[in-house]
Amino acid sequence: MKPVIESVCEKYDLLPLKENGYQITKEFLLSVIEICVEFIKKSNDRSTKVLDFHQPDQLMQVFDFAIPDEPQNLDQLLVDCKDTLKYQVKTAHPHYFNQLSCGLDIVSLAGEWLTAAANTNMFTYEIAPVFILMEHFVLKKMREIIGFPNGDSILAPGGAISNLYAVIVARHAMFPEYKTKGLKALPQLVLFTSEHSHYSTKGAGATCGFGTDNVVEVPCDFNGRMIPDELERLVKQAIAKGHRPFFVNCTCGTTVLGAFDPINPLADICEKYNMWLHVDAAWGGGCLLSPKHKHKLAGIERARSVTWNPHKLMGSLLQCSTGLLIDCNQMCADYLFQQDKHYDVRFDTGDKVIQCGRHNDIFKLWLMWRSKGVSGYVKHIDHLFDMTQYMVKKIKEKSDQFYLIWEEPECVNVCFWYIPKRLRNVAHTREREEELGRITAKLKGRMMNAGTLMISYQPLGDKPNFFRNIISNPGVKEKDIDFMLAELDRLGHDL
Amino acid sequence: MKPVIESVCEKYDLLPLKENGYQITKEFLLSVIEICVEFIKKSNDRSTKVLDFHQPDQLMQVFDFAIPDEPQNLDQLLVDCKDTLKYQVKTAHPHYFNQLSCGLDIVSLAGEWLTAAANTNMFTYEIAPVFILMEHFVLKKMREIIGFPNGDSILAPGGAISNLYAVIVARHAMFPEYKTKGLKALPQLVLFTSEHSHYSTKGAGATCGFGTDNVVEVPCDFNGRMIPDELERLVKQAIAKGHRPFFVNCTCGTTVLGAFDPINPLADICEKYNMWLHVDAAWGGGCLLSPKHKHKLAGIERARSVTWNPHKLMGSLLQCSTGLLIDCNQMCADYLFQQDKHYDVRFDTGDKVIQCGRHNDIFKLWLMWRSKGVSGYVKHIDHLFDMTQYMVKKIKEKSDQFYLIWEEPECVNVCFWYIPKRLRNVAHTREREEELGRITAKLKGRMMNAGTLMISYQPLGDKPNFFRNIISNPGVKEKDIDFMLAELDRLGHDL
Repeated sequence: MKPVIESVCEKYDLLPLKENGYQITKEFLLSVIEICVEFIKKSNDRSTKVLDFHQPDQLMQVFDFAIPDEPQNLDQLLVDCKDTLKYQVKTAHPHYFNQLSCGLDIVSLAGEWLTAAANTNMFTYEIAPVFILMEHFVLKKMREIIGFPNGDSILAPGGAISNLYAVIVARHAMFPEYKTKGLKALPQLVLFTSEHSHYSTKGAGATCGFGTDNVVEVPCDFNGRMIPDELERLVKQAIAKGHRPFFVNCTCGTTVLGAFDPINPLADICEKYNMWLHVDAAWGGGCLLSPKHKHKLAGIERARSVTWNPHKLMGSLLQCSTGLLIDCNQMCADYLFQQDKHYDVRFDTGDKVIQCGRHNDIFKLWLMWRSKGVSGYVKHIDHLFDMTQYMVKKIKEKSDQFYLIWEEPECVNVCFWYIPKRLRNVAHTREREEELGRITAKLKGRMMNAGTLMISYQPLGDKPNFFRNIISNPGVKEKDIDFMLAELDRLGHDL
Repeated sequence: MKPVIESVCEKYDLLPLKENGYQITKEFLLSVIEICVEFIKKSNDRSTKVLDFHQPDQLMQVFDFAIPDEPQNLDQLLVDCKDTLKYQVKTAHPHYFNQLSCGLDIVSLAGEWLTAAANTNMFTYEIAPVFILMEHFVLKKMREIIGFPNGDSILAPGGAISNLYAVIVARHAMFPEYKTKGLKALPQLVLFTSEHSHYSTKGAGATCGFGTDNVVEVPCDFNGRMIPDELERLVKQAIAKGHRPFFVNCTCGTTVLGAFDPINPLADICEKYNMWLHVDAAWGGGCLLSPKHKHKLAGIERARSVTWNPHKLMGSLLQCSTGLLIDCNQMCADYLFQQDKHYDVRFDTGDKVIQCGRHNDIFKLWLMWRSKGVSGYVKHIDHLFDMTQYMVKKIKEKSDQFYLIWEEPECVNVCFWYIPKRLRNVAHTREREEELGRITAKLKGRMMNAGTLMISYQPLGDKPNFFRNIISNPGVKEKDIDFMLAELDRLGHDL
């Protein structure tokens, strides 16, 4: 029976100051690590389930979420840890294809563990010297890959906030008077983003006070890419209304289809109308690491800001999102930043972010990148695309069972309907599409209850619900794709 | 010699899929944990230094930050881990008094390690069932402590973003048309915050498009508390200009002095003029857990939103910040959130935050709170205040060596000048204050170079640089405070 940690002082003597306190501390921490390693082992064992699904009400009955009045002892905490992982989805499982971030890189995990032990704030060089310089070097490397010779960057808590930064910085660079006077002193500013883009640009439009009516959705072609002529038409329309178009969000890797907007033609329009070009490559940015796939982002060096999330295609742990910029958003905070410090304060990052406390998201990426080297990431990215090609090929071979909605995916997103027996050899009408949409939701329900597979689904435009499969776990092999397709048929053939 | 992980497929067989791959993986992870535990042990050993300071240029010479072309082997990665911690500041050291977040709770650390192994996104119940419900229960508990019978909440990446949420939600609740139309369709909205408040309210004013001129700084009394009559005067002034006052930020625990604005009189003014009352208790919120200290936040249940950071006084790992709200900011994102899911989607959080990817910040807090229980946190908070009282008492006893700027700290912030020998027994004039300000920066330089102690400093209003000491590490004991005061004198007596 391990001790209850009764009082603060006792606790901080036991854990970890006293002689035997150190032993107890170490044993406790190693027990937690054992539990984690066991979970990782199971996550990588193809014979285990991806999840053991419980409805919220059921889970509340079997799991004790309460904060107790009295302290729980260390044994109970270990039980809590085990139970937590028991009911958690195994996002590292090779049969988990549900999100843009799948898999668990072991080196990145080790990096995150060390990050937690270091427990510092990415605020000033003074309190995070190594990590601040690491961020400086890694972000410089990423800007070089993009083709930004100068510039500045920040790690933000997720791609939506990185996109928000881009909007803030663009406004600040182009209309600096907004900062003190507010938007009422400016003409009506207008942003443009494709109808398939991530909702965060619209979100930034609301947050920043432009209004979502002034975040104009530009139509896409059938493959989900923004149509440059449509952009120019809408820009002219805004100008005719007396508004000021100032920001174009170009998506490289849309959320659902994985489409890449054509950067060069959009950059031409931005130059012509003096608009800020932002590239949201949160999803597709990883392609820049592969000579074979970087052409999808041709022209990215013409952007003035880029969002690129290493926690997606690059497989770093969540979360790790970069905003790679030419300019910075600075708020004056001289009570926090002394210019009379005894070191070079240009490395302090606290005054260029809208956060104050900021989590250390760099070490897990830096260590992972060291472990792979530049060459390892080429193989990593190419492997994901090779597996995607394999999946597309297999689906095309089974065209009675699967309807591939977009035949040539640009990214690792594969969008399809599963066709149960009764709908095979039936003409593909609007009614059939709607029925396949209903089947998609039902099949997902069966999948969750069986726990053997996870693939996400959604509607898009006039297409009713369809599956969007993601291969971003480099542990996925051909046999996993074979399993996925067979399992969908096993679970759904009679629907 | 451990292996280089050459290719993706090899890597994902070695780590951790193959028979011996699992062994290598486990050994590697346990080696990293050994390095972390050794660091924690040293951080808690009072005979070690707090930091081994290097100027940025020096550190770049001794540390290899580069991303190499070829993969590094596991041995090299372990060297990287060791070196990283070698140059990192020990924020858990009992002689580290530098930031609002000090110390390292072992249980919270274990929680963060498990969080990393689970590597999920706090987005939908589907992919994070246990953690989403945990967040639901813990935030409900925190709202109950505040006295909000209903409401909703979110964990945000830091207090600045939590405060930004408060501004966004207030605007959304009071002027919903801004969302589509933008701010140009509204009267000029005005926010109020005290001159001692955190810069994030001004930051939110810029970000949201109000303009910093419309974030009015309200004067404070000598103790750093907002003066209610001054607030009312400035509100009337804004109304006279045709503006619309709508938001008052009331700080409970200012960054430098640790002052608590008087909530009840401010709430009266907010009611009278129909303004949203936000309480920024990022720092002082922890006092609510102690029957002895919660009176400092009397009236908090009258707020409409509260920021409260468990990573500060409550000692959870960075970062953990809550925004406790009455209403929510929802963006439509139906391609991400299906209403035809086979479970109750009211627990999905993704559509109420401005983030899309969101780190799991709940488990480290939940596990820590379980380990302490409600009763343990009473002791935790009271201990921090007891140590602060001890420090104030000791400083008053040594009034020749220390000048206590605010004699009765409301929080655990203690602000003072150190007085070197040559300035003792000298009249306290403006010149002496300026000289003590210069000495503060010099003494900090000596402190960093000695590496034995860390205390932060800043100017405030007409006060030149002074030390602001924080006791938020519950491992701090009287002997650590004795050490601190003696060490300041040892390092600075001849300045």
